Amino acid sequence: MKNELLDIVENNFSNKQLIKKKLADMNIVDIAEIFDDLEKEKALQIFRLLPKNKAADIFSYISPEKQKLIIEAITDKELGKIIDDLYLDDTVDLLEEMPANVVRKILKNTDRATRKIINQFLNYPEDSAGSVMTIEYVDLQKDMTIREAIDMIRKTVEDKETFEICYVVSEERLLEGTVSIKDILLTDDDKKISDIMDNKNIIYVNTTDDKEFVSKLFMKYDCSSLAVVDNEKRLVGIITVDDVVDIIQDENTEDFELMAAMTPSEKPYLKTSILKLAINRIPWLLFLMISATLTGFVINNFESGLAKESVLIAFIPMLMDTGGNSGSQAATLAIRGLALNEIKTSDFFAIMFKESSVGLIAGFVLAVFNFFRLLILKYDILVALTVCSSILLTVVISNIIGGILPLIAKFLKLDPALMAAPLITTIVDVISLIAYFCIASSLLNI
Amino acid sequence: MKNELLDIVENNFSNKQLIKKKLADMNIVDIAEIFDDLEKEKALQIFRLLPKNKAADIFSYISPEKQKLIIEAITDKELGKIIDDLYLDDTVDLLEEMPANVVRKILKNTDRATRKIINQFLNYPEDSAGSVMTIEYVDLQKDMTIREAIDMIRKTVEDKETFEICYVVSEERLLEGTVSIKDILLTDDDKKISDIMDNKNIIYVNTTDDKEFVSKLFMKYDCSSLAVVDNEKRLVGIITVDDVVDIIQDENTEDFELMAAMTPSEKPYLKTSILKLAINRIPWLLFLMISATLTGFVINNFESGLAKESVLIAFIPMLMDTGGNSGSQAATLAIRGLALNEIKTSDFFAIMFKESSVGLIAGFVLAVFNFFRLLILKYDILVALTVCSSILLTVVISNIIGGILPLIAKFLKLDPALMAAPLITTIVDVISLIAYFCIASSLLNI
Repeated sequence: MKNELLDIVENNFSNKQLIKKKLADMNIVDIAEIFDDLEKEKALQIFRLLPKNKAADIFSYISPEKQKLIIEAITDKELGKIIDDLYLDDTVDLLEEMPANVVRKILKNTDRATRKIINQFLNYPEDSAGSVMTIEYVDLQKDMTIREAIDMIRKTVEDKETFEICYVVSEERLLEGTVSIKDILLTDDDKKISDIMDNKNIIYVNTTDDKEFVSKLFMKYDCSSLAVVDNEKRLVGIITVDDVVDIIQDENTEDFELMAAMTPSEKPYLKTSILKLAINRIPWLLFLMISATLTGFVINNFESGLAKESVLIAFIPMLMDTGGNSGSQAATLAIRGLALNEIKTSDFFAIMFKESSVGLIAGFVLAVFNFFRLLILKYDILVALTVCSSILLTVVISNIIGGILPLIAKFLKLDPALMAAPLITTIVDVISLIAYFCIASSLLNI
Repeated sequence: MKNELLDIVENNFSNKQLIKKKLADMNIVDIAEIFDDLEKEKALQIFRLLPKNKAADIFSYISPEKQKLIIEAITDKELGKIIDDLYLDDTVDLLEEMPANVVRKILKNTDRATRKIINQFLNYPEDSAGSVMTIEYVDLQKDMTIREAIDMIRKTVEDKETFEICYVVSEERLLEGTVSIKDILLTDDDKKISDIMDNKNIIYVNTTDDKEFVSKLFMKYDCSSLAVVDNEKRLVGIITVDDVVDIIQDENTEDFELMAAMTPSEKPYLKTSILKLAINRIPWLLFLMISATLTGFVINNFESGLAKESVLIAFIPMLMDTGGNSGSQAATLAIRGLALNEIKTSDFFAIMFKESSVGLIAGFVLAVFNFFRLLILKYDILVALTVCSSILLTVVISNIIGGILPLIAKFLKLDPALMAAPLITTIVDVISLIAYFCIASSLLNI
């Protein structure tokens, strides 16, 4: 479908009727994607051929680069129409992406009331519920009859993002309850909203609540939308589930990046500049590199031993890697469990027990395997014993450290994702080297 | 709220009226959570006090352990009522969690038709769209008037999971189109469904499609529900967005686990047995340990050099760690970008360019820092130069390898998440050691 249209645009651009027909038949998301492949002039012409009632919807899915080109090129009147038709949260997203001159052009084409709301939205802290909410919800009053409510919904629904849940507010716009459209449709016309509304279990967040908290509430209560109130408990917006899906993916991306020892990035990889990527990574690499120099001290301390049994040097990387890998397995499970609320800090001892047990089993298997490998390779049996008992000990210690450090971080109100592979590896390196050299000293008498 | 109820249950258990009142006031998810803290007898008594119209809903949120206790204890009649009220996808989830004797008791209390559908559901491949769909959707016919459609919806909506989107099917149940409830409410009563239904952009999946594909479609098109059809394109179910949120979290967890070199687990950490945890980890640890023995060969080959300049040994762990960390930073960004469709395999050269540039900057900063550190610590200047140029080279190479291996995996139809920290570290270890020793040979003449 997408390629068909691109084909027509390339080879049959004068046939505007054919293009219009294709556009009318296509999904808005697919249409928006096409703009990425068009140069400026064609993009603009295609944009003007879009079905009028879908133009704003399509526009909200176009990439920021092309949105900018289009806004710069179209007339104020055309822009005004688009902004009118956009949902407010999409307008705010747009403003956040555009450079100052484009922002001015957009604001010039909105009325004073909208401008006021937009400014308010732009002032909510980044990552707050206020910054992701939308104002296009259905609000009802509790003394409305079902008939009146349905009429009201039919009259206003066109501009609303969702209405599975309608919100009941007082004259002062205090949130008084919620009522599902399902219950409205199931109730007789002359009953009142107050008869069927739920005023006890209203789940809501404050504009300043963190969006991670929002996504956790959504997941816990399987909401389809969530009320956002200000400090006086007045309803100011709702958050819809499609925004929550984006929040969840953002939170996950943040965890992936933290766990690989990077400052999380706001933009997709390909849109992030080289310098920004470097700045996100260098401090962590530096910190970890400095921490890793500790291993150097351990080795220096044992230099004479290593000089006598130089065969031991060759096992250092393998031992360190195995410790790092076991530790980060345990840490990943603990971090993920905490993120999904499957693990609590009170599970400390359960996790410690589990990880030491798993460590004993895994360490034993690895040690036995290695023991026979080393015997086959005709290493001295005492060397083999040294290496293998070091492996066992390292795996057990790494598992315990990996399993409990994220819990400790959580307890200290730090992000558990910080306690992932890179840091665990550095800590485990030092410990495994000390263990290795101590065992070597006693078994090999060096 | 939850603690209040627990308190009453502990200290005032005979006051059934008070408990009933509290239960009526609470959110169903919060009520379900309480069962985790109750022992069998109390759990059962509380379960019987639940408001009748919410009992099934609450039941679907109770943990499998307590669900099992309750099913074993209640009468067939009580169980029949619960199963009747459960959404079919929740019943199927329940059956998948329960042991055989409980499954028998459940199936005994369903009618023949339901049993047939359940069996069909249980036969869909794990992780397929069929296994997560639900059959409680609203279906309309295209020659219905809007009035007839609304009447039909009002009559049947009680049992439906969602109806923002209604599905239009032919007599043979072929999927002919979709229509949003919004459009239905906005249209005059005597128009026909066929006048307003969308029959061109129907987004649907097949029962056997992978659920990862489902979640990607949802995210791309911001759907509120998605049609599932069989091989003859007959509508057999829908997938709702709350199921998609679960799918997204499962996919993310799978990636986190793969990236830490583990076989993904089906169950939450605390519910997974020690043996299962060990089995999920040992093969990977073993594979990585064997790969890491390559570093041993590299070191053995350079043993005489190391014996001459034993000071070089102390830098091995730091060099390896830094390489591993840079490589896994790059790999994480590439893997995540691929998972979110922000990066395509065709971006190969863009990523290679970006990662080598970032590697040059980061490597340079780390090398310069280290150079001065080593000079201050009074190391020989040639040793310092050897270590620092090795760091620079290692970081650049690690970044490139980390950035492109996930793309190569994707190109080879492997899961890019396999190319994460553990494997990258092992590969980078060998390369960085070779680089280190080569530079040492030429600079220090050993």
